[in-house]
Amino acid sequence: MAVQTVHTTSASDESGTGTVDLGPAAALSCRECGERFALGPIFACESCFGPLEVAYDLPDDGPDALKKRIAEGPDNIWRYAPLLPVPADVAAHPSTNPGFTKLVRADNLARELGITGELHVKDDSGNPTHSFKDRVVAIAVEAARAFGFTTLSCSSTGNLAGAVGAAAARAGFRSCVFIPHDLEQGKVVMAAVYGGELVGIEGNYDDVNRFCSELIGDPLGEGWGFVNVNLRPYYGEGSKTLAYEICEQLGWRLPDQIVIPIASGSQLTKIDKGLRELVKLGLVEDRPYKIFGAQAEGCSPVSTAFKAGHDVVRPQKPNTIAKSLAIGNPADGPYVLDIARRTGGAVEDVNDEQVVDAIKLLARTEGIFAETAGGVTVGVTRKLIEDGRLDPALTTVVLNTGDGLKTLDAVSPTTGPTATIRPSLDAFRAAGLAS
Amino acid sequence: MAVQTVHTTSASDESGTGTVDLGPAAALSCRECGERFALGPIFACESCFGPLEVAYDLPDDGPDALKKRIAEGPDNIWRYAPLLPVPADVAAHPSTNPGFTKLVRADNLARELGITGELHVKDDSGNPTHSFKDRVVAIAVEAARAFGFTTLSCSSTGNLAGAVGAAAARAGFRSCVFIPHDLEQGKVVMAAVYGGELVGIEGNYDDVNRFCSELIGDPLGEGWGFVNVNLRPYYGEGSKTLAYEICEQLGWRLPDQIVIPIASGSQLTKIDKGLRELVKLGLVEDRPYKIFGAQAEGCSPVSTAFKAGHDVVRPQKPNTIAKSLAIGNPADGPYVLDIARRTGGAVEDVNDEQVVDAIKLLARTEGIFAETAGGVTVGVTRKLIEDGRLDPALTTVVLNTGDGLKTLDAVSPTTGPTATIRPSLDAFRAAGLAS
Repeated sequence: MAVQTVHTTSASDESGTGTVDLGPAAALSCRECGERFALGPIFACESCFGPLEVAYDLPDDGPDALKKRIAEGPDNIWRYAPLLPVPADVAAHPSTNPGFTKLVRADNLARELGITGELHVKDDSGNPTHSFKDRVVAIAVEAARAFGFTTLSCSSTGNLAGAVGAAAARAGFRSCVFIPHDLEQGKVVMAAVYGGELVGIEGNYDDVNRFCSELIGDPLGEGWGFVNVNLRPYYGEGSKTLAYEICEQLGWRLPDQIVIPIASGSQLTKIDKGLRELVKLGLVEDRPYKIFGAQAEGCSPVSTAFKAGHDVVRPQKPNTIAKSLAIGNPADGPYVLDIARRTGGAVEDVNDEQVVDAIKLLARTEGIFAETAGGVTVGVTRKLIEDGRLDPALTTVVLNTGDGLKTLDAVSPTTGPTATIRPSLDAFRAAGLAS
Repeated sequence: MAVQTVHTTSASDESGTGTVDLGPAAALSCRECGERFALGPIFACESCFGPLEVAYDLPDDGPDALKKRIAEGPDNIWRYAPLLPVPADVAAHPSTNPGFTKLVRADNLARELGITGELHVKDDSGNPTHSFKDRVVAIAVEAARAFGFTTLSCSSTGNLAGAVGAAAARAGFRSCVFIPHDLEQGKVVMAAVYGGELVGIEGNYDDVNRFCSELIGDPLGEGWGFVNVNLRPYYGEGSKTLAYEICEQLGWRLPDQIVIPIASGSQLTKIDKGLRELVKLGLVEDRPYKIFGAQAEGCSPVSTAFKAGHDVVRPQKPNTIAKSLAIGNPADGPYVLDIARRTGGAVEDVNDEQVVDAIKLLARTEGIFAETAGGVTVGVTRKLIEDGRLDPALTTVVLNTGDGLKTLDAVSPTTGPTATIRPSLDAFRAAGLAS
């Protein structure tokens, strides 16, 4: 098994001893069987092959003291260091310092959607490389540092490659990132400009992934931290910061409803984990919240399973413009189904035309230009309001996880000048645009 | 004169009475002859045709009280409302809420440049539409609101159009923006996606500008606030917030040296104005600072005048990849020359190849992907260090005013995969990239 090989060949000095300092992170535990492992660059249970996640010794100095520590922290994810698998002095490490992005009160959008309660957009396009990936990568960098890795790597179709390239450059790591060889030029430039190695793989994303798995098990990959493979348990925890920020920005209050995009499903499950931690720590009042997952119709394995009442997610071959969500076999799909059902939420999907309409709706009402994933969440919100599953009178938060500049192709065929005229007042008058 | 026409036909009810509430803004004053005018949508002196700027009654409650008010304000430019031409309750108005972008301590870049003191990059790519234009537009929106305008407009080659579109959408204004008809598709999409009117003008940027001047003097343009024409005195003040933020983020301390890009020159002159205000208010200790202006060689009218010892700037026909700086006849050129000479700074330029090298240098060392304007400032910084005009032992701040995603074409010809291989370990080994 590649998994065990990684465990015993990479960073074995530290991973076996339990002396790694990742702050409140106490161990890794299996999400299926609960078995615990020392902190290390491993990602699957040795007993049952279930996914591993970080288990914590969370602070017990009471909610008021903790809120004060957080408020005194920096304006980025490191303010939540006491709740993350990072050392206490993390804010002093070189990092892209993502997070604490805007929670935008979206009254104009609310009016258009018929929402009478509070509507907020959590806008992660404000991160350093303009997607939420900066959050998860920043945490993975700290794990890589703790485990003695000197090269950061990943398989990616774009956003992640840019986030890894930028974070590695800033933090002084070598990086070597793998992408399908036929990506759009813009994404290739973003992945290459930070000066790390960028390798195009002749094949599709699945081929890239398979190749990376081979590399992890081979001496060629020794000393390499693959942020979304052997560092995945740490990496995933970065998404908890979205939950923390939303609640803090609401004045330490849980939202009633939250709409989250689903790619692997990891982000949704970690946001739920973060919300439950805040309740447990007494930072927010314990009351019900509903979690809604959003997919594009052209890659909707979780939505399909939800609607059919299944516990198992059947893989799909993706065909949608929402490429950052196009994972046909989402690893955390079953956990997403659990959470949507447990909280009384749902998983829904919208087609590509609805995605484009929703991107434009958000831009027109709030001045936020979202990537396709943001079109998916706004589009699904509209659908859920229309069929009554989302209560318009409550407090709702919708996530935008990326930037429209990265997915221009989605809107460019239908977005352009109102008119093109000669530079004269007569021509302008004839165009009928004067107020 | 179109100027007077605007003054007396637009928003005349308010502009003549002096009852407009723009906070500490007391009047407009002529930068040439000093004559004062009531606050209104005017931009040139009726006596000498000199440019108007905002004159203030600044707060006199002492530096400590003011620092406290600022610290208690929001994490955006409105924290500086007591120093800006905006009403006291501005933070409650719908706005894109730009500003308080990261001041990045750039130790890696400093090492490469041979800087032994503190080097910081003020990274304005973190603004809502990813350029510093969000700052100036946000202030113009408040002026437009105060003067009763209902349509926001501008002439633009890209960044400004996006900033106006987003701000208008969010703040509930109609927008009608004018661009040359042959812009790159990406910039057209950014200008159009927010749903305002976008008019392509058959001609170049100069033709667009001329057309806008005609429109301001015509009844067709009544009720229109052109952010960079009849609202320009207010708009320009937005750049002061860069000075405020830099000093606050340095712990209420002036930098020793600051490198600023020059397009019209307005940003540089307003940053200097902001720094002097902070000294006057006692928020920072009064000590010398040097201001350096940065241009691209292909559009370097101010740099050329500086080197020749001239007080007058001779217009140039722009030919550079740094299109956001390509103003051949910069309105504030003479003021820039004054400031560079008064502070002991300089104005320098770099060629397009040096711009591209500098973009890559910043990306590789700090994980910041700058637009071409950022390549200009970093490139000029390197040049000034090499020839000894910038002291490497002092505290230096370099501005990045935009985002690399908007000027991909500058780096794409020389930025791509290190290798493209089949998905096999043998192929990877042969590529020689293993650690």
